Amino acid sequence: MSFVERSREFCYVDPESNFTLDYAGMKVEKSDFAAMSDKFAAAAVEMKKIEAGEIKNIDEKRKVTHFTDRIAYAGSPFFAEVEAFAEKVRSGEIKGSTGKKFDAVVVNGIGGSALGPQLMQFAINGPYWNELSDEQRRGYLKIYFLDNTDSAELVDLLNVMDMESTLHLVVSKSGGTQETKNNMIVMNDLYRAAGLDFARHAAAVTMKGSELDKFARSSNFLAVFEMAESIGGRTSETSIVGHVPAALTGVDFAAFLKGACHMDELTRSENYCENPAMLLSALWYIAGKGKGDRNMVIVPYSDRLVLLSRYLQQLVMESLGKELDRNGNVVHQGLNVFGNKGGTDAHAFIQQLNDGRDDLFVTFIEILKDAGRYPVTDGFVIGDYLHGFRVGLSDALRGKGRQVINIQLEKLGVYELGMIIALYERAVALYAEYININAFHQPGVQAYKLAAKSILKTQSEFMAAAEKISGFEGDAAEIAAKAGMPDKVLEIAGLLDKAAANCDCVQRCYDEKKGGFVYRIK
Amino acid sequence: MSFVERSREFCYVDPESNFTLDYAGMKVEKSDFAAMSDKFAAAAVEMKKIEAGEIKNIDEKRKVTHFTDRIAYAGSPFFAEVEAFAEKVRSGEIKGSTGKKFDAVVVNGIGGSALGPQLMQFAINGPYWNELSDEQRRGYLKIYFLDNTDSAELVDLLNVMDMESTLHLVVSKSGGTQETKNNMIVMNDLYRAAGLDFARHAAAVTMKGSELDKFARSSNFLAVFEMAESIGGRTSETSIVGHVPAALTGVDFAAFLKGACHMDELTRSENYCENPAMLLSALWYIAGKGKGDRNMVIVPYSDRLVLLSRYLQQLVMESLGKELDRNGNVVHQGLNVFGNKGGTDAHAFIQQLNDGRDDLFVTFIEILKDAGRYPVTDGFVIGDYLHGFRVGLSDALRGKGRQVINIQLEKLGVYELGMIIALYERAVALYAEYININAFHQPGVQAYKLAAKSILKTQSEFMAAAEKISGFEGDAAEIAAKAGMPDKVLEIAGLLDKAAANCDCVQRCYDEKKGGFVYRIK
Repeated sequence: MSFVERSREFCYVDPESNFTLDYAGMKVEKSDFAAMSDKFAAAAVEMKKIEAGEIKNIDEKRKVTHFTDRIAYAGSPFFAEVEAFAEKVRSGEIKGSTGKKFDAVVVNGIGGSALGPQLMQFAINGPYWNELSDEQRRGYLKIYFLDNTDSAELVDLLNVMDMESTLHLVVSKSGGTQETKNNMIVMNDLYRAAGLDFARHAAAVTMKGSELDKFARSSNFLAVFEMAESIGGRTSETSIVGHVPAALTGVDFAAFLKGACHMDELTRSENYCENPAMLLSALWYIAGKGKGDRNMVIVPYSDRLVLLSRYLQQLVMESLGKELDRNGNVVHQGLNVFGNKGGTDAHAFIQQLNDGRDDLFVTFIEILKDAGRYPVTDGFVIGDYLHGFRVGLSDALRGKGRQVINIQLEKLGVYELGMIIALYERAVALYAEYININAFHQPGVQAYKLAAKSILKTQSEFMAAAEKISGFEGDAAEIAAKAGMPDKVLEIAGLLDKAAANCDCVQRCYDEKKGGFVYRIK
Repeated sequence: MSFVERSREFCYVDPESNFTLDYAGMKVEKSDFAAMSDKFAAAAVEMKKIEAGEIKNIDEKRKVTHFTDRIAYAGSPFFAEVEAFAEKVRSGEIKGSTGKKFDAVVVNGIGGSALGPQLMQFAINGPYWNELSDEQRRGYLKIYFLDNTDSAELVDLLNVMDMESTLHLVVSKSGGTQETKNNMIVMNDLYRAAGLDFARHAAAVTMKGSELDKFARSSNFLAVFEMAESIGGRTSETSIVGHVPAALTGVDFAAFLKGACHMDELTRSENYCENPAMLLSALWYIAGKGKGDRNMVIVPYSDRLVLLSRYLQQLVMESLGKELDRNGNVVHQGLNVFGNKGGTDAHAFIQQLNDGRDDLFVTFIEILKDAGRYPVTDGFVIGDYLHGFRVGLSDALRGKGRQVINIQLEKLGVYELGMIIALYERAVALYAEYININAFHQPGVQAYKLAAKSILKTQSEFMAAAEKISGFEGDAAEIAAKAGMPDKVLEIAGLLDKAAANCDCVQRCYDEKKGGFVYRIK
């Protein structure tokens, strides 16, 4: 088969949207797909079970409803409530505690509560939304994110934040996410110190009955939006988690949902040839021999999609990176995802993709419609080069025997973004079926949370023992012994390092003889 | 050896800066380093040759001077010239063509010309620099980047850019980088259309005698700064390429150079125990069996270092991802780099790192000094959690048999950023010696440039044949034949797809029977 024939044969097109998935550049043959027919059939059955509301996240005993909730969501009272709230904020009907109109929203959430909204903002409102005039923003809010427990993030935000005109949206499903809680506590304190009522600047998105839900209701937040238990953080962008930040910044969320639902329709097909998610996940499976042996490199040819790789990194790796399969066998599955944006990346890591280790497949995502038509030279416009570079790189990679998927979209709007997100969500769920893992839990994150908790417990104990070591000088082992915590030398070393950099209660210097740091406690 | 002993044994500390490289969490033993002694010795010899000015980039017949140029740079007239220019811009002595003081700089450059300055800006001036008041910015300029040939980037910039008060810094070593050239042409046109003289808003950084150098001088740019031929894009952040954007935005570049030079001193040692770059590169080598078999995951526990992984992705992958070794043997070397920031990532892809494929090693970079001390609960401040999460995750990963490097810095300032960059630059150069490749060229990027050029040539030919196909309707193969270009079916299909989305000269629709797109040409 010539490559031209192959390009016709190995190409899926959705005639309605002109969405195109061209996989002629992958090392696959019809027989590879045929060999997966049992997996396709079994996965299709499981996908139906998910959509029928079976408990598919067995470890957490939860349904998985992100594929189905979004069908009804746009027509639901919940949706209308969010839109109404956003409109009241925009119009100034809802104001801050001092009567100032809200001008900015701070989204305080981590992981799935931040990555989706960040992707959406950058893709739809662009990189300089906050620098636009109020008129350019049509009265919608500027947007900031707190997505960590790093004080630098707070200091940076406070340098540009006007307390009186800022709305705080606290997003945490469980309501107990420590990073989010920390930022809320600090903000609450800062408002109180300024003589302002934080609650009158705050809204929450959380599960009914959660710690955050109780706090928000008891302190009279401006609004509390309910989040479904059955939607995981990394698949929450089409839910209320994505909706509230979108509505506050003028993004047409209904159209976004339409795009996602359209892709859901396409990806319900049981015939892999007609199902782009089945094709995509099968390509991952075949390329990586069902074990993720090739890294997935995501290269959107679109500046506004620069955060897509980071979003997909979470969606794919948190879903598929699992120790055990559903029968309890140790499988250590996973699929590495990274990338940035083309053509920029061709001046960065593409050198390795082209010449180096053959341990990857590249997914290009091209947006055909140019945002502007700026002429350059020889009758070309700026966008002709972007296209030429994309095709040129595809060809160069293929010429080196590297594997390439080309996805094309007519333009970049909310509808198309909905399609992309729904496509990858479905592909991840299908891939999990092929390899028999639970894509919807995250036990490794639990392990980490426990370990972190134990460090903080050690810190508390160490602080309680402060009297015992007052005035003492020694290395971490000596101080740990003195504090009566001889089995916590490393943890205490870390705490002392941290303290030495942040307060004058501890001084630290390197002792050549001991070959390590010694500390003097005040 | 207990892990406490191991943590003392496998830990490098620089007593002067308290920079710490703790590699107890890597699966290495003294014997692994001992086995590399010949490699260490040979690499040390080669590093001396580099610094002595030998032609080390043999393919491009160039010296490699980024390690040495920066020693003298801060004291040179070139440095003073940049500082003087920046001060004149800040003070308003140099103004825009209409007499307005410059308020913003657009850095137009790609790859190494953008990634370093972007990292620097985010790390030192923070995420909201452009939103700060002129007073908060101490009169220094807001900063924007054009780092692609995507019209969306231009549209977005133009929405916030005031032409009269904007300075354009065009950065291209060769002066022929197409993306950069395109953006400059568009800007030049826009200024002309507005009746303004672009040259009086423009400065350039380029090699003497380059196309850009000639253009800038002949059209009287405000300044032309000379870039050394012997410094590659990905190692240019400590050169004038990093300096001009830094100086215009109030960054203390001299202190940055001091940090880099201090790390250079440390990493000149021939004793691997005393040389953090030799240690680091040896850890990469041992972990990946000299073939990059493990991905390098970069997780800075610092919001302001979120761009570090992207910067290192270029530095490491473009340098080490090579097809041939220096003897011409096919080796397909490389080292995958990705990451984002901790603790955020613990809610994203860390699930896979902890439980999934064991094909990685993680490098944590912790900043001990908190930007602010915000109390939260139980006597903890925000930063205690960040530290606890870092240690907790290190422990959790190690508990799962995963490999971890912990780097610690006292604080995040320009000096420390200089240290990190110099550390990784040296580690990359050393690693290239261990595996006998040229770290300083990028032949794969050349291959891609040629392929892209050929696509644009096809577009020109196709445009020239427009008359022949006027009014025609058919699929890409039929149109290609009609245009007399039957061997360019795929390229022409791409051009037609692009045209259909962007002008009414081509209509496209999916033909079910043909199983592909058909096009109608006007």
